[in-house]
Amino acid sequence: MTMTILVAPSGFKESLSVDDVTLAIHEGILKALPNARVLCAPMVDGGEGTVKALVRATGGRLVKARVTGPVGQPVDSFFGLMGGKGPKTAVIEMAAAAGLSLVPRDQRNPMLTTSYGVGQLILKALAHGAKRILVGCGDSGINDGGAGLAQALGARLLDAEGRDLPQGGGALVNLHSIDLRRLDPRLAKVRIDAAVNWHNRLLGEKGVARVFGPQKGATPEQVEHLDRAMQRWADLIERHTGQDVGIAPGAGASGGLGAGLIAFAGATLHPRFDIILNYLDFDRLLSEADLVITAEGSLDGQSPYGKVPCEVARRAEALGIPTIALAGTIGRGVDQTFAHGISAFASILKRPCTLEEAIRDGYKLLRRATEDAIRMIAVGQRLSGSRAFA
Amino acid sequence: MTMTILVAPSGFKESLSVDDVTLAIHEGILKALPNARVLCAPMVDGGEGTVKALVRATGGRLVKARVTGPVGQPVDSFFGLMGGKGPKTAVIEMAAAAGLSLVPRDQRNPMLTTSYGVGQLILKALAHGAKRILVGCGDSGINDGGAGLAQALGARLLDAEGRDLPQGGGALVNLHSIDLRRLDPRLAKVRIDAAVNWHNRLLGEKGVARVFGPQKGATPEQVEHLDRAMQRWADLIERHTGQDVGIAPGAGASGGLGAGLIAFAGATLHPRFDIILNYLDFDRLLSEADLVITAEGSLDGQSPYGKVPCEVARRAEALGIPTIALAGTIGRGVDQTFAHGISAFASILKRPCTLEEAIRDGYKLLRRATEDAIRMIAVGQRLSGSRAFA
Repeated sequence: MTMTILVAPSGFKESLSVDDVTLAIHEGILKALPNARVLCAPMVDGGEGTVKALVRATGGRLVKARVTGPVGQPVDSFFGLMGGKGPKTAVIEMAAAAGLSLVPRDQRNPMLTTSYGVGQLILKALAHGAKRILVGCGDSGINDGGAGLAQALGARLLDAEGRDLPQGGGALVNLHSIDLRRLDPRLAKVRIDAAVNWHNRLLGEKGVARVFGPQKGATPEQVEHLDRAMQRWADLIERHTGQDVGIAPGAGASGGLGAGLIAFAGATLHPRFDIILNYLDFDRLLSEADLVITAEGSLDGQSPYGKVPCEVARRAEALGIPTIALAGTIGRGVDQTFAHGISAFASILKRPCTLEEAIRDGYKLLRRATEDAIRMIAVGQRLSGSRAFA
Repeated sequence: MTMTILVAPSGFKESLSVDDVTLAIHEGILKALPNARVLCAPMVDGGEGTVKALVRATGGRLVKARVTGPVGQPVDSFFGLMGGKGPKTAVIEMAAAAGLSLVPRDQRNPMLTTSYGVGQLILKALAHGAKRILVGCGDSGINDGGAGLAQALGARLLDAEGRDLPQGGGALVNLHSIDLRRLDPRLAKVRIDAAVNWHNRLLGEKGVARVFGPQKGATPEQVEHLDRAMQRWADLIERHTGQDVGIAPGAGASGGLGAGLIAFAGATLHPRFDIILNYLDFDRLLSEADLVITAEGSLDGQSPYGKVPCEVARRAEALGIPTIALAGTIGRGVDQTFAHGISAFASILKRPCTLEEAIRDGYKLLRRATEDAIRMIAVGQRLSGSRAFA
């Protein structure tokens, strides 16, 4: 009988996209086992690459969309329409409209950058008839709490004189009231889920401005200003919508976009892997699999704490399905992964080399490592036919 | 039921002795599979380390012996008495009495170096009651055709005036006759086998002086001189013993020691792995194994041509037993090993590193790689219990 293998890897940071990782493993399996049935569930995290990976995995399509970028410039963005049965489903990655990579280095000022384009992508998905929308958060270049998103969706953010606020999180210190009357009515009829880092809060010592502001270019003074702005933003949101985004888990994701998604898009936030696995129909794929192959750039003692390989392996183990992990680097404490569903692992390296060489040859090395791991597994299959089975 | 695993690796050149490799793999197996039964057959090649590995593998003992070294100096040498049942068996490595590492760099003159100590080791083994002697060839520092060996065993090598020749291959150009009357009579009653590189010839274009002389320090003129000396040596051996060592396979092994072993010790030469596996009782060990683990520093397209992993794997495959190979470097053309009995392989590396780091950490890396390979095999054993078995 044919073996069914579910490929559920992460991308390799600074080396291979999750699409490339998935494809390399797929090819490696077929080299060793030409008759295998291969299912693919690229484990994206909501950040860059999420849309393309989900579209490819489900046989969907990309839709181009010109939107306003994080510094107000027009950008050629996109969203995805997922394939498969069920209601029409769109997938958006916020980074494609407001990502850090869209902010020129000399304009990295999170006081001014905006999530406006993310709201535009949601409207375009609605225009395409989407009944479900998944918004991936991650790799953002903004800190506006989703204020731009709110404006794009039709909310008006007004100062004490009743004038619309300019773009950017910094202006929110002057927010006096929110006018929701022109909010797009289609939002009430669509299900919007957002994949977020569940630990990101909007306010306080571990709030978005303090934790992420500096890496988006904020000075210490700007961090303080933005933190006050987020506080004001949360207060006004609560007054106008009744939502307490200040303490909501994930509301601080992507520069506070999570807060805006809750308050203005009616979105539900989810720990990122939970909801992405849901949209990928992961449980069904898993139920058909005999073996799971996962992968990440590094596998080590940190892997059990929210990294893809253990997220995948725990779910597989619950169904009694073994998971093997492939990685560029096998690091300290890796044995801890055995308690989180990983049955065996292998490095992709075949000879002494530099990190640069490993990155350069990553695709070939990963394909080869997959083939070799499958061959090793096949030895075990042979053995169990003999008296060796322990 | 317990799995029985036969560990049959080579040493890792410039990194790990075959003993260390065997031990590291043994430990790695037990980490993953505490109940495994582990059999060990260190795959020595006749050169340095052969005696210690065979003694350890069979539970035998080392015997110290002071002999004449390759430049005439006394050296603290040794031979082994193998453990196990059967006739008393000694094992000698020629390198322990006439190896290149015993020739000081400033005395690397193969015109003068002698195999005399090897003959002394044979006599000492006889004195210990050995009924079988295995002589391992390899890593030699001589080019005397076994003339020193012959003299130690009691033969007289005489010039035209009837005087004994001095030590060293160079003097053999003056050889006029051989007096065999004082040859040790015990040699007629012992079985001596020699493990040699089967391709080493004594004479001609691919003869020992031309191929190996330069690396032992011979100048071009000395190479020509030594080649004439070996020709003279072969002529006189044929006249006095009837043996044609000039064309005998392996007679050129270890500076022509093979020739001397044939003519004066009554030895039978064998391709090295064949006879070493015989002395290790390899076929019996193999017949008890469910799985074989072999290893070498490198595994690549050259491995099928006389290297340990494929020598081992071919024998295992003939009995239907799978072999896996571990290596520091997996190189070009490695897929060719699949046609020679290797079922799967793995590199010992876990992260980008230099060759020096890989060598420094070789023992730990190999132990870890063994454990990881066994875990991967165990996944296959689990799978075959499910519907996955193809």
